Amino acid sequence: MISEAAKQLLIQIVGRENYDDSKAGRLVYSYDATPQFQAIPEAVMAPRNTKEVSEIVKVCAEHRIPIVPRGSGTNLCAGTCPIEGGIVLLFKHMNRILEIDEDNLTATVQPGVITLDLIKSVEEKGLFYPPDPSSMKISTIGGNINENSGGLRGLKYGVTRDYVLGLEAVLANGDIIRTGGKLAKDVAGYDLTRLLVGSEGTLGIITEATLKLVPMPEAKKTMLALYQDLEAAARSVSKIIASKIIPATLEFLDQPTLRVVEDYAQIGLPTDVKAVLLIEQDGTREVVEREMRQIERICKEEQAVSVQLARSEQEADALRTARRSALSALARLRPTTILEDATVPRSEIAKMVTAINEIAEKYRVMICTFGHAGDGNLHPTCPTDARDDEEMERVEAAFAEIFAKAIELGGTITGEHGVGAMKAPYLEWKLGKEGVEVMQAIKRALDPYNIMNPGKVFAKSTRKRVVVTK
Amino acid sequence: MISEAAKQLLIQIVGRENYDDSKAGRLVYSYDATPQFQAIPEAVMAPRNTKEVSEIVKVCAEHRIPIVPRGSGTNLCAGTCPIEGGIVLLFKHMNRILEIDEDNLTATVQPGVITLDLIKSVEEKGLFYPPDPSSMKISTIGGNINENSGGLRGLKYGVTRDYVLGLEAVLANGDIIRTGGKLAKDVAGYDLTRLLVGSEGTLGIITEATLKLVPMPEAKKTMLALYQDLEAAARSVSKIIASKIIPATLEFLDQPTLRVVEDYAQIGLPTDVKAVLLIEQDGTREVVEREMRQIERICKEEQAVSVQLARSEQEADALRTARRSALSALARLRPTTILEDATVPRSEIAKMVTAINEIAEKYRVMICTFGHAGDGNLHPTCPTDARDDEEMERVEAAFAEIFAKAIELGGTITGEHGVGAMKAPYLEWKLGKEGVEVMQAIKRALDPYNIMNPGKVFAKSTRKRVVVTK
Repeated sequence: MISEAAKQLLIQIVGRENYDDSKAGRLVYSYDATPQFQAIPEAVMAPRNTKEVSEIVKVCAEHRIPIVPRGSGTNLCAGTCPIEGGIVLLFKHMNRILEIDEDNLTATVQPGVITLDLIKSVEEKGLFYPPDPSSMKISTIGGNINENSGGLRGLKYGVTRDYVLGLEAVLANGDIIRTGGKLAKDVAGYDLTRLLVGSEGTLGIITEATLKLVPMPEAKKTMLALYQDLEAAARSVSKIIASKIIPATLEFLDQPTLRVVEDYAQIGLPTDVKAVLLIEQDGTREVVEREMRQIERICKEEQAVSVQLARSEQEADALRTARRSALSALARLRPTTILEDATVPRSEIAKMVTAINEIAEKYRVMICTFGHAGDGNLHPTCPTDARDDEEMERVEAAFAEIFAKAIELGGTITGEHGVGAMKAPYLEWKLGKEGVEVMQAIKRALDPYNIMNPGKVFAKSTRKRVVVTK
Repeated sequence: MISEAAKQLLIQIVGRENYDDSKAGRLVYSYDATPQFQAIPEAVMAPRNTKEVSEIVKVCAEHRIPIVPRGSGTNLCAGTCPIEGGIVLLFKHMNRILEIDEDNLTATVQPGVITLDLIKSVEEKGLFYPPDPSSMKISTIGGNINENSGGLRGLKYGVTRDYVLGLEAVLANGDIIRTGGKLAKDVAGYDLTRLLVGSEGTLGIITEATLKLVPMPEAKKTMLALYQDLEAAARSVSKIIASKIIPATLEFLDQPTLRVVEDYAQIGLPTDVKAVLLIEQDGTREVVEREMRQIERICKEEQAVSVQLARSEQEADALRTARRSALSALARLRPTTILEDATVPRSEIAKMVTAINEIAEKYRVMICTFGHAGDGNLHPTCPTDARDDEEMERVEAAFAEIFAKAIELGGTITGEHGVGAMKAPYLEWKLGKEGVEVMQAIKRALDPYNIMNPGKVFAKSTRKRVVVTK
């Protein structure tokens, strides 16, 4: 509860125009992109600089008020749903690209910068910021860092974590720390930078980031390989990488996803095949030409029924956009869409997809699967209806079994979406009791009053997702 | 102190042959490659498996006995000097490459594997493990992980941290945890993998690691560019990278280093120039050819007096080996060699080298500088004599000023050597009081009795290096 005294202190910090506790204002920030989670915050605040963030945190620490930092709320793990109330912190005033340093190949940004805006700004200078979550048109860099977002280029280029060189952050006691810097190498103490990346706002609030850039690849080509056999598609993935080629993108869509995406995007995707691989390579012109020819040969050897090279950048872009729209397309089918993030070693993809299909059948639910085949990061997605309790029971049971299978195959419960409130009940499956305990010890050490995005990452007791309404 | 009761428990775990508390045995492990640090451990133990490590730690936790995990002791920060006594833990029985997985491009290894042995084993399969610390012929993977070792290929390929996908580790309470896996993406909770990497044995003992491999580049070329002007060499570095080329190696040697290295290696290095850049590029044949031509042009534009391409792999290897031998060569000059690790943003290299030379003059000490110019990681090295107190005072003062300058230029006190006991007094300069406090909070949370490599990373009070003798 925010007392009147605390409220006045908070308003003093940011000004009345940046403190909103109206019913309408709070309702807007009561949920994020994750279905089934909603909770009303007590106030929504928009600090204008790091000092204000620090002052807000000090008041919150003193008054034990939960703080939930929020970018655009595109996360899929209920990471920004304020399930214990308190304050939702917005970064709409802290949304500037502070510097693009072409000598050191870095960008320094505030957390509220939109991912795509950063990507476009650096590309104008012939540079490249690879992390490209599907939500990049709306998502913020701050959100990407908190969730350690992945994307379509993860296989070759890695994820957000691999591009964060330094951070400024406000800790739970209001201290402002700076980690790392414009440095390719820095081993001065523990790696706080990477401890904060992916910590989902539970250890500190990111107020500035120094990001690594790389030179823009000279050329890029895009290809679609069509299969009547799931295993053949999976074998192609393995064989491409075994032949020492690491494509920039290596995406998989199954037939149900394909049909829905084509229905939505209308770009002439084949809907009569069992699986599609969307493959991209970038680099120098010669290498891209050569490797795409090799990839084509491998796909054909592995019984691809057709391999089509995009004839133009427009066509390539249409294919990428279609893939990125998979969630939106699937979301049109039924009232609720649950998109998951089970990830396995690349060699286990065929087994995992087969298991997902068997599990869907067993529990009589529809599951469409697409995802980043190259890095084993699959997104089994279930169009369902949260109002139907009986069906939801089956959906829950199916996903629990999918997570268990991913772990059994040496995988994880989440590859890029984060744990949040949604997957907290399953964290122990991946980490064991000891692993969760050591994370909790870190959490307690850094946030003794549990005010930083409470209720995330660590579950109270149940292994079931819970519909939270406050 | 190890009581007789504790000693008997420890012997029961590993067998008498793996517990050595003889004076000679202890003396051998009383120091590492860092000058000026020596302390006698109470015992040296060699566990045979993870279970034994866990049992040892449980006994040590109960009896408050310090544990110092040690690879080959090649570190340069007194990271494995047992300055608070206790047990030095060796991994000579845990030195196997458990698996090289060509489908998932991973290697799973025990901590005692020699770095070069791993590199050779994966290269036989056409794969590549890029981290290549200069000590790689002797250093172990466990040591590399504990120190987050860098190397000559850091600019293009990153450091050890970037290749650790998963760990098995024993925590301070004896718990065995497993982090990550054969996974390109994994965001299940905090990034314990990277928290452990570079934590110098102060948070846990690494007992197994899953490492990322990449395809072996098809071709490699090596070039030497000679300069009569330090600034010109630094400008070449900036211009190469500004032209969107990221070389695999971009090493710098100043004239004093060059002379000593040539005297040692006798391979015909020029000793009449002020600075040399050793440049390597790898990749496909076409790209390497083209980029090396571009690099050559840039170096010449920036007043290189000569640019020489290695004519054969033997010649290239001789150049690389000469560079790697810089420390050994410099160590021949005087009884004590202090090699440092100040790191700055790439754009600040010329300023930093100039500052180092001015500081050396001011304090009348000899400082030779070489290092990884591409990533701003310099190794100013001082041949001196630890027996000469007056000179050592000046050496201390000079290095303190070098660290201060590095920080002033946006750099760090250590790029790849670690903090250990040696740089602990300077940690606060980089991190601020708040930064050190949050690291100490993590340390206390994970190791409440301070038994895991105590006395490292965090200094008691002084800002001066201390000669420790126990």
